Amino acid sequence: MSATKPMRQRVEEYVVELQDTIVAAFEKLDPNAGPFKRDSWIRAQGGRGQSCVFPSSSSSSDASTNTTSILEKAGVNISVVHGVLPPAAIKQMKADHSTIPSSADPATQKSLPFFAAGLSLVIHPRNPHAPTVHANYRYFEITDPDQVDENGEQKVVAWWFGGGSDLTPSYLYEEDAVHFHKTLKDACDNHGQGLYGPFKKWCDEYFYIPHRGESRGIGGIFFDDLCDALHKKLDAEAQRPRTPDEIFAFVRSTGDAFVPSYLPILEKRAKAESTEEERRWQLLRRGRYVEFNLVYDRGTKFGLATPGARIESILMSLPETARWEYMSEMGTDEESREGQLLKVLKSPRDWV
Amino acid sequence: MSATKPMRQRVEEYVVELQDTIVAAFEKLDPNAGPFKRDSWIRAQGGRGQSCVFPSSSSSSDASTNTTSILEKAGVNISVVHGVLPPAAIKQMKADHSTIPSSADPATQKSLPFFAAGLSLVIHPRNPHAPTVHANYRYFEITDPDQVDENGEQKVVAWWFGGGSDLTPSYLYEEDAVHFHKTLKDACDNHGQGLYGPFKKWCDEYFYIPHRGESRGIGGIFFDDLCDALHKKLDAEAQRPRTPDEIFAFVRSTGDAFVPSYLPILEKRAKAESTEEERRWQLLRRGRYVEFNLVYDRGTKFGLATPGARIESILMSLPETARWEYMSEMGTDEESREGQLLKVLKSPRDWV
Repeated sequence: MSATKPMRQRVEEYVVELQDTIVAAFEKLDPNAGPFKRDSWIRAQGGRGQSCVFPSSSSSSDASTNTTSILEKAGVNISVVHGVLPPAAIKQMKADHSTIPSSADPATQKSLPFFAAGLSLVIHPRNPHAPTVHANYRYFEITDPDQVDENGEQKVVAWWFGGGSDLTPSYLYEEDAVHFHKTLKDACDNHGQGLYGPFKKWCDEYFYIPHRGESRGIGGIFFDDLCDALHKKLDAEAQRPRTPDEIFAFVRSTGDAFVPSYLPILEKRAKAESTEEERRWQLLRRGRYVEFNLVYDRGTKFGLATPGARIESILMSLPETARWEYMSEMGTDEESREGQLLKVLKSPRDWV
Repeated sequence: MSATKPMRQRVEEYVVELQDTIVAAFEKLDPNAGPFKRDSWIRAQGGRGQSCVFPSSSSSSDASTNTTSILEKAGVNISVVHGVLPPAAIKQMKADHSTIPSSADPATQKSLPFFAAGLSLVIHPRNPHAPTVHANYRYFEITDPDQVDENGEQKVVAWWFGGGSDLTPSYLYEEDAVHFHKTLKDACDNHGQGLYGPFKKWCDEYFYIPHRGESRGIGGIFFDDLCDALHKKLDAEAQRPRTPDEIFAFVRSTGDAFVPSYLPILEKRAKAESTEEERRWQLLRRGRYVEFNLVYDRGTKFGLATPGARIESILMSLPETARWEYMSEMGTDEESREGQLLKVLKSPRDWV
């Protein structure tokens, strides 16, 4: 990998720093709301993490009376874990990572060590005019204890980065969608012109709720399995980062773009006037958010199915409150502001 | 099947009548709240249904200002549908229904007509001391167009009943749990002493949320695949209904037991004094209800994955409002009333 430190260490240092930067930005935006709660944890099977959550306490005095904070519920989590992948999991990963040695074939029943580090965040603001945002940046590595590299370490037989961020407004402000996408596109373009287009499309495909025929939000970028091999979503000739250093630099750019892509939007919308009706629509949209996360999100499904997983971290993505109405009339008038959002969710638009 | 009318017609008549009875009972209990909305629908691929829902309108004037009604959100649905089962679905059903002809083997690519009729209900009362209840009664039939019975109709090659009901309190009242279970047990025992025990256990197993290590509620009964063959959950020698008429009579007893099992509890708890804290706990418990229904409930998952399914009917089971807190402290004190509920959810009890 790199000539200096191993990539796993560099990624760990980066996500620790990025978490600090992001949490500090939110705390600075709303100093009266009090700090995020820092909640460090240790994984019995190997590794550690830190959840930074808002509100800092779930006690009723905070939860039901502090209705003036900009954020309603938020979590910015990092985790750096390691362990052993069973043969079945390796087989599944091999589809996208041909460098995984065939000795890892389930027939041989060989398990392999893995390392995973990442940051994942979900921000649900209180104001119906301020959009929810989600972001995730992650690195995954598989080593083979039977092989050594030039430094005498276990050889890395497969590695990849994944990540992205996406915006989920209850009310559409076109200039916000443009700003969000433009910031992400600039972060991508610095590392190759061939990235934003495919990753924007991938985001629209991923955050889709088939049973509603709607996207979860107005998109952003999404990518996975990014390494030095050919990538199924990118042209062979695409302008793209190809070495570990180049790909890590690209991921850092998208991570660093989070604050400038989102905070200006939050700042602009957080103090808007809003009505009970708009709040009701926001809670209905949060119901859709819950539907996507519990029914379709791969990370959530994987987490819920993993014995010993930290459920509180996995389900931190859920909003504080969500609402379901039978045959709600909200959004059925295409000319209404609610109807205008639905139109965009049913036919994703190109924003830049 | 029966000497008189075909079972499909008898079941249809029964669920239509049961829906009327149940809805009328709720309307009588809370006459000031206004009637349920009757919403009839036609299935393009064959069949029809009627949803009876409360509140009758989702418009904001009702939804946000009528906070005095006993019910917060409720649906009592019937559906009577028919169509054609693809070979893959038949193969899955054949595991529990060996009478399905082997000509339906996927290798032959033969599809078979099906008929399904049922009633399904979920009642979410407003008061935190009044429990949520769910019930379902259903009949399923597969015919073979290449065979005829003695009346010249398509031969029924497989049929079965399923159903049950279960109670989900936010606060445990032991006498309510006993009343609910006792009423169901009596309905079962009239048709054989071997039913309540296995079906109570099945209910505890089915309504379990693995990622929380909790049951959804305090149980009831659950059964499926009940027909004239041996049943995997019942002893071969069990006292149980065995003919179509006997099984239908048993299912009618459990359906008829719904109103007496639940309405007295609702009546007793609906006007209890309650605090903001108790409401908050109720909404947290409703979050768990959403988790179970979206992540584990077979009917919901099947419905969401079925193209053209009526999403509004499937998701009517979700509460009007649900809440999620990170690492909530509610329920962590084992001596608190919230903690007492959790204890029962973690170790299901025998109530009668």
